[in-house]
Amino acid sequence: MKDNISINIKIDNSGQMPLYLQIARQLSVLIKKGDIKPGEKLPPIRKLARNLGVNPITVVNAYKTLEEEGYVYSRIGSGTFAVNHYGYGKSGDIQKFSLPLLEETDHSEFSLMDQGQIQIKPGTINFASATPSPELFPVNEFKEVLNEVLERDKGFAFSYQESQGFYPLRESIANFVELYNINTTPEEIQIISGAQQGIDIISKVLINPGDYIFIESPSYTGAISAFNSRGARLVEIPIKPDGIDLDFLENSLNKQRPKFIYLMPCFQNPTGYLYSETTRKGILDLAERYNFLIIEDDHLSDLNFSNKRVLPLKSSDRNHRVVYIKSFSKIFMPGLRLAFLISPVQIFNDILTAKHSSDISTSGLLQRAFDLYLRKGIFPAHIETTRRIYKQRYDTMLSSLKKFLPGDISMNPPSGGLNFWLRLPEGYISNNLYIECLKKDILFVPGSFFFPSQKPSPYFRLSFAAVNNREILQGVEVLSRVIRVFLKEYAGIKAPSPTYIPFL
Amino acid sequence: MKDNISINIKIDNSGQMPLYLQIARQLSVLIKKGDIKPGEKLPPIRKLARNLGVNPITVVNAYKTLEEEGYVYSRIGSGTFAVNHYGYGKSGDIQKFSLPLLEETDHSEFSLMDQGQIQIKPGTINFASATPSPELFPVNEFKEVLNEVLERDKGFAFSYQESQGFYPLRESIANFVELYNINTTPEEIQIISGAQQGIDIISKVLINPGDYIFIESPSYTGAISAFNSRGARLVEIPIKPDGIDLDFLENSLNKQRPKFIYLMPCFQNPTGYLYSETTRKGILDLAERYNFLIIEDDHLSDLNFSNKRVLPLKSSDRNHRVVYIKSFSKIFMPGLRLAFLISPVQIFNDILTAKHSSDISTSGLLQRAFDLYLRKGIFPAHIETTRRIYKQRYDTMLSSLKKFLPGDISMNPPSGGLNFWLRLPEGYISNNLYIECLKKDILFVPGSFFFPSQKPSPYFRLSFAAVNNREILQGVEVLSRVIRVFLKEYAGIKAPSPTYIPFL
Repeated sequence: MKDNISINIKIDNSGQMPLYLQIARQLSVLIKKGDIKPGEKLPPIRKLARNLGVNPITVVNAYKTLEEEGYVYSRIGSGTFAVNHYGYGKSGDIQKFSLPLLEETDHSEFSLMDQGQIQIKPGTINFASATPSPELFPVNEFKEVLNEVLERDKGFAFSYQESQGFYPLRESIANFVELYNINTTPEEIQIISGAQQGIDIISKVLINPGDYIFIESPSYTGAISAFNSRGARLVEIPIKPDGIDLDFLENSLNKQRPKFIYLMPCFQNPTGYLYSETTRKGILDLAERYNFLIIEDDHLSDLNFSNKRVLPLKSSDRNHRVVYIKSFSKIFMPGLRLAFLISPVQIFNDILTAKHSSDISTSGLLQRAFDLYLRKGIFPAHIETTRRIYKQRYDTMLSSLKKFLPGDISMNPPSGGLNFWLRLPEGYISNNLYIECLKKDILFVPGSFFFPSQKPSPYFRLSFAAVNNREILQGVEVLSRVIRVFLKEYAGIKAPSPTYIPFL
Repeated sequence: MKDNISINIKIDNSGQMPLYLQIARQLSVLIKKGDIKPGEKLPPIRKLARNLGVNPITVVNAYKTLEEEGYVYSRIGSGTFAVNHYGYGKSGDIQKFSLPLLEETDHSEFSLMDQGQIQIKPGTINFASATPSPELFPVNEFKEVLNEVLERDKGFAFSYQESQGFYPLRESIANFVELYNINTTPEEIQIISGAQQGIDIISKVLINPGDYIFIESPSYTGAISAFNSRGARLVEIPIKPDGIDLDFLENSLNKQRPKFIYLMPCFQNPTGYLYSETTRKGILDLAERYNFLIIEDDHLSDLNFSNKRVLPLKSSDRNHRVVYIKSFSKIFMPGLRLAFLISPVQIFNDILTAKHSSDISTSGLLQRAFDLYLRKGIFPAHIETTRRIYKQRYDTMLSSLKKFLPGDISMNPPSGGLNFWLRLPEGYISNNLYIECLKKDILFVPGSFFFPSQKPSPYFRLSFAAVNNREILQGVEVLSRVIRVFLKEYAGIKAPSPTYIPFL
């Protein structure tokens, strides 16, 4: 017998539109019209698939699309339900799966694993997101500077801004980076719409199809995808707790010459590793001898929890080898979409051209407001507050992990940043653990996401950016229990990792 | 004898930094320190070059850099002077040459033509800029919605936004485009950081090196540069007053198959031409028969000064062939860096991925504010006000051109938009006229900029976006006088066009 909902869905097999989208569209209309009531359960996947005469995976894709669009949510073992209200992303709303993971390219394929639909709902402990929570943002201060700028500059705040960036902001930033022992001028600074754009622009300037690009292994997926988009050939250089493996690197350099190497020397993502002085000297020396550029992505150097000073690699860049990309997403507000790049002069004009053809310029209003914020001199205090809050979370996380985690899980605790990088014993794959944890409302990022091949990995990343102390304590305890059971149940299953269903 | 300034400049010939940048840097320091006083004249180009032992073009480049950075301005026949104050871009400040021209990729090479340095100073009549003037922006209304959003959403306004864009804004836009007879849903809409980003994203999705891309000839330089950056092979299809030349297009289609054709059917840039119904039907039909996509860039359809309704091509797109990119830069505020794209489903997921790897997402604060602005329902009234103001300028421009312009200058007056496209008699080149006009403080864009080859052209573009009625009257009169003299003096000079010195 047909259910009420499938009666209302018409399938067009002409190939004009993918089947899953046809289904998702029509379901979203039913939800919007109220034919499917808020909270109402949608038909089970197999049943709807049978009634519509389509493959179950098509329905999975349709439900997944609806979930991404905020129309439905799902509970393992219970099914898929229309949300109560959708759209505004206020706390209390259903959080979309993609939201906390935005900074990684895309994790949505995981939600299709094992026919599993996943639940991201209030109550889930989110160790996946390395994005700070909105309650840490200095909203009132920023509101003030926004209004001051609008009073001061009026329509000019909404004119085109120079592609290189608002000159006074570049001045403020040149002053600001003295904190990092970086000596620069406004002329060397390029304002960008977030660090991802910096990576994209560098890729446009430096990568031609077939060029070799070296990356740390594991590395940031957003960078990997930008490099791939330009047709780069990626060479992975393993990273160790004191930084990139220099011997491996030099061997690779003797085989291939990269256009550049992409590094996160301060609390690397995902490992949290900090480059030692020796590694820093080594990499700068190799860059000189083998003539390549270093792209330094710095989004975490400010979150240093040790007593030793941590500086970007750029501060030691005597030979103009380092392109420095600085993001404020972790220490200020990710939604501002504002970052900057300091580049050696030899490629500066190309960077400016690439910026122009990417989006002409970054919002002048936000540049002017951030300039004023910097000029008020309150940013260092905000960074210190942020650092202290994260330091607390870090301490809680570290002590909980030490207390609860089974002894056969290994880690090298970082001395800063927002991530712990853990490793399952030989033969276990974190993708499987991920699924088990989801059932207990614990979310983390499996290691496979940080490798270009997405190869199954025993590693996984726990972030403490979006969880409070209570959640950390509770989450680590539950996680540790799940792991103990997992290690028993999956013993000997050197299982083929779940099949990936590419979705996005 | 050495002048005081050159004594203070040290030239390093090691090749670490281009000479012109060394000079510009040191001069900027002297200006900032006050060693060169505000308003003080800088040494003449040849003199400084001789004293420093460099080529005069190096000094020209240095001065040009300083001018772009807002440190100096220059007056033809008088020299180069330190500005009185720099940076904030308020009215009364020296306007940088690059500013009014931002929407075209780069015109700065012109300032180096003929050793000429150009003057952009208050008093110049700017027919070059197609960017609306800040006094037309609804700053107060936008300030209100910004504050409302910050009250309502607090920190969430600064969180990462979904890559596809804030869902409620996509809803608002789906409603808004009903005005254009476009029938869509929030699911088909991608929010982008300005139309240029839309063009860049489409290029990432669709262009592989060596692919053929068809463009109107002439066309928008920002698009040309984005296509070139992906290694496209551009095929130019001439445009006529009723739209692209369909016969020429079909001939070209029989030789090469393009990934897409990039069109501006409503008041094309730079020509102002409006596609007729016949051309629209023809192009949609060819897209179907030859299986290619159409990228429609619509930034001017709202500025229709005739009584006939003007709709985007997308409104007739029955077969999902048109990717529609809509910019608000001309009818709202260019500095907002907010636009949207409506795409056929077959490439939607790729667009989303490309958006993510470009800049993750567009500023959530600005998206939320613009959503609220749209929901207040005041946008159509603002568009109408803007349209009326430009209609006045258009009328003034048209009557002035008819009154003053020598009869041998030909034009097809547009029925909307912001540009007039004029043509010198056979054998004359607008680059030369450009230089003559600069001497009289009249600025326009020579036609060569709108062709991929930058070939010398008899055409030139006059925009009335950034000039008031008084300036139009005065500007057209002066321009016409310059043209009369120019036509005599350059008669018979089928001159080789001035050499281009690539700068950016």
